[in-house]
Amino acid sequence: MKKVGVAILGLGVVGGGTYKILTENKEYFKRTQNIDLTVESVLELNRERALSLGCDESIIASSIEEVLTNPNVDIVVEVIGGVTVAKNFVIKALKSGKSVVTSNKELFAKFWPELEEEAKKRNVGLFFEASCVGGVPIIRTLQEGMQGNNIKSIKGIINGTTNYILTKMAYEGVSYDVALKEAQSLGYAEANPTADVEGFDATYKLSILSSLAFHTIICIENVYIEGISNVSFTDIAYGKEMGYTLKLLAIGKNTEKGVEVRVHPTFIKSENPLAAVNDSFNAVFIEGDAVGDVMLYGRGAGALPTGSAIVSDVIYAAKHADCYYASFDNSEKGNKATKFVTDFCTKYYLRMSVKDQAGVLTKFTGVFAKNKLSIKEVKQVSYKNGYAEIIITTHECKESALRKTLEKLVDLEEVAKVNACIRIED
Amino acid sequence: MKKVGVAILGLGVVGGGTYKILTENKEYFKRTQNIDLTVESVLELNRERALSLGCDESIIASSIEEVLTNPNVDIVVEVIGGVTVAKNFVIKALKSGKSVVTSNKELFAKFWPELEEEAKKRNVGLFFEASCVGGVPIIRTLQEGMQGNNIKSIKGIINGTTNYILTKMAYEGVSYDVALKEAQSLGYAEANPTADVEGFDATYKLSILSSLAFHTIICIENVYIEGISNVSFTDIAYGKEMGYTLKLLAIGKNTEKGVEVRVHPTFIKSENPLAAVNDSFNAVFIEGDAVGDVMLYGRGAGALPTGSAIVSDVIYAAKHADCYYASFDNSEKGNKATKFVTDFCTKYYLRMSVKDQAGVLTKFTGVFAKNKLSIKEVKQVSYKNGYAEIIITTHECKESALRKTLEKLVDLEEVAKVNACIRIED
Repeated sequence: MKKVGVAILGLGVVGGGTYKILTENKEYFKRTQNIDLTVESVLELNRERALSLGCDESIIASSIEEVLTNPNVDIVVEVIGGVTVAKNFVIKALKSGKSVVTSNKELFAKFWPELEEEAKKRNVGLFFEASCVGGVPIIRTLQEGMQGNNIKSIKGIINGTTNYILTKMAYEGVSYDVALKEAQSLGYAEANPTADVEGFDATYKLSILSSLAFHTIICIENVYIEGISNVSFTDIAYGKEMGYTLKLLAIGKNTEKGVEVRVHPTFIKSENPLAAVNDSFNAVFIEGDAVGDVMLYGRGAGALPTGSAIVSDVIYAAKHADCYYASFDNSEKGNKATKFVTDFCTKYYLRMSVKDQAGVLTKFTGVFAKNKLSIKEVKQVSYKNGYAEIIITTHECKESALRKTLEKLVDLEEVAKVNACIRIED
Repeated sequence: MKKVGVAILGLGVVGGGTYKILTENKEYFKRTQNIDLTVESVLELNRERALSLGCDESIIASSIEEVLTNPNVDIVVEVIGGVTVAKNFVIKALKSGKSVVTSNKELFAKFWPELEEEAKKRNVGLFFEASCVGGVPIIRTLQEGMQGNNIKSIKGIINGTTNYILTKMAYEGVSYDVALKEAQSLGYAEANPTADVEGFDATYKLSILSSLAFHTIICIENVYIEGISNVSFTDIAYGKEMGYTLKLLAIGKNTEKGVEVRVHPTFIKSENPLAAVNDSFNAVFIEGDAVGDVMLYGRGAGALPTGSAIVSDVIYAAKHADCYYASFDNSEKGNKATKFVTDFCTKYYLRMSVKDQAGVLTKFTGVFAKNKLSIKEVKQVSYKNGYAEIIITTHECKESALRKTLEKLVDLEEVAKVNACIRIED
């Protein structure tokens, strides 16, 4: 039986889960995978934490050098997070000839080419299934499950924290602030929730997933980002009446015009399967030219789900002699020449406060017409102190047309405020 | 660039789809996978069919020997179906040192150990992603995506034909016969629909999927099978009123008591995501000990979806030097000693016609009590010519207790007929 030594850098939530799975299921993996996986080394500054997880004193290393010079260590698991120390350690591990397994989406989204180059140079493996959608094997699906397809689009809910908050708001009618506090108290959101609620976490993941799907490096700078911190319950409620559910969607499309990647709050039809994906669950539709839509659904975060993805990578790395790199399109039309669509087409939901006086409707629908923005529906939803609240939905139009229209609208003295502008994807 | 030659045995629906994807996406695969895939040989008795698909005369072989002695053929795709000729050809291909890719679930369900042994002997690859759930990469997910988990259960809709029929019945209120005829006219069901409607197709797939999930060979003889040909719209309608949707579920569980595998019409709660899986779509929940539930959803059949799974296997076979066999548990507790649970526990829905007279209820509820079968709900749903139609749902009980109860019930002179007996899985 093949003996494989594993080192874990960082014993936080995911590191702890990984340690637990590797040790508790050791006999199971021997029986079913014919591999004897042993945690030979852990790097964790908090020794108490390591000991409380059951680590033997002898495997607690005090430096990265101690880990990497340990001849029993074949595979290094990086679950420290962040990009400074983590990057340094990953590069060192690769240089030492160890295969690396990581859950670090930020690191991958920002430094993928550099890491992959280093891995290729040493002919060692570099695995990152746990970086996206937790325990759901979406990276393996893109790399080795659906590669008989030309992938046309990916669309999904890939951040559990924001999905928990939006679900809470929708079902309990609470404000964003209340929902966020509850998410924090349950450990779903961090004390500083920026990375999640402003869409950065989803952007890192979308960058990785769309790079794999479209076979070209898609940087985070290419992604349009809008978080959920300005979402109000009012719009969730109005949307519901109109048959829409609000989700933070990550969308990647590869069309003849180019690649389009964006993360933003989105109204989807309530009968869309994604509308039923609640709490901290994730789900992603992947559209292949041959297979059509495939959907994957499961827990996008958590010690054991994410730990299971890491362990799957460890087993994969241990079994396959060949390495596992992304297959980017290095042709003329590939990597360097990727075109991006930034003025994307979608539908919109707008909520505005307007003066309740004769001719207002004519005036602002005129602004829409002038900018070639076609209105689907206008309705007044409330009235207060001489101001009417109006909801407008549009047919599909270019982002630029919408922005121009908004600029002109706020110039009208009859328009007090545009309260919300949310994209609709049917 | 690696050049890889492919032979396709059989150019029916799936073979045609495979040929189309391999030829039309040839340049795409060169760019993105760095492999030059060429169809070097096809074996198809209907030459017209081959020519109409665009095959060059020169690649149409007239015998399996001609295919297998072609030095340019590296990978043989078997999409003939059936088990006699197909098995013969697959064995010959493996013996010739070619890797084999197949979509043949019946072949795999019946002769897997024999095929795998032959492949291992020659050290060639044996791939069967297309055998289950069409273009959805469920086999790769079990083998290489969720292997960090001890899989506890799989549960899903894995036959598109029966799902189409049940959807049609539920949404349009038509009878089984009408729905079947429509499925046949659309090509979703075959002229002889037995394999689909009696649950055999789902059984082949469940045998393969549960073997992979539970790391032990699970034969079709181990599976409890019940098809949908006796399902009536009446029960679908009553179920709907009670919050249930009827689906043909394939269920595999691995518990401390043993492995439980069954295919039968099942009432599931209408809010269960599987209840929303309609028409010919498939969906499967896989429950891992670490990750919890993961769901995969997509098209379970069709020329291009299934073709895409075959092409994914071809690419996988072409890229990985190592081979791809199932990882069965060969320990003492493994393969040979697998225990099966046949007297499984579930809830039931019963519909019976009983004489409408005083004391009937007491009499037949007494039979339930005597057999320790706990009733959840009893209600009368209709009345005709002195007979009342009664629906009874039970709490969880053993199959054996239910059967004993049924036997006693039909012995009662007050019970005219048990019209339906359907399992409920919440």
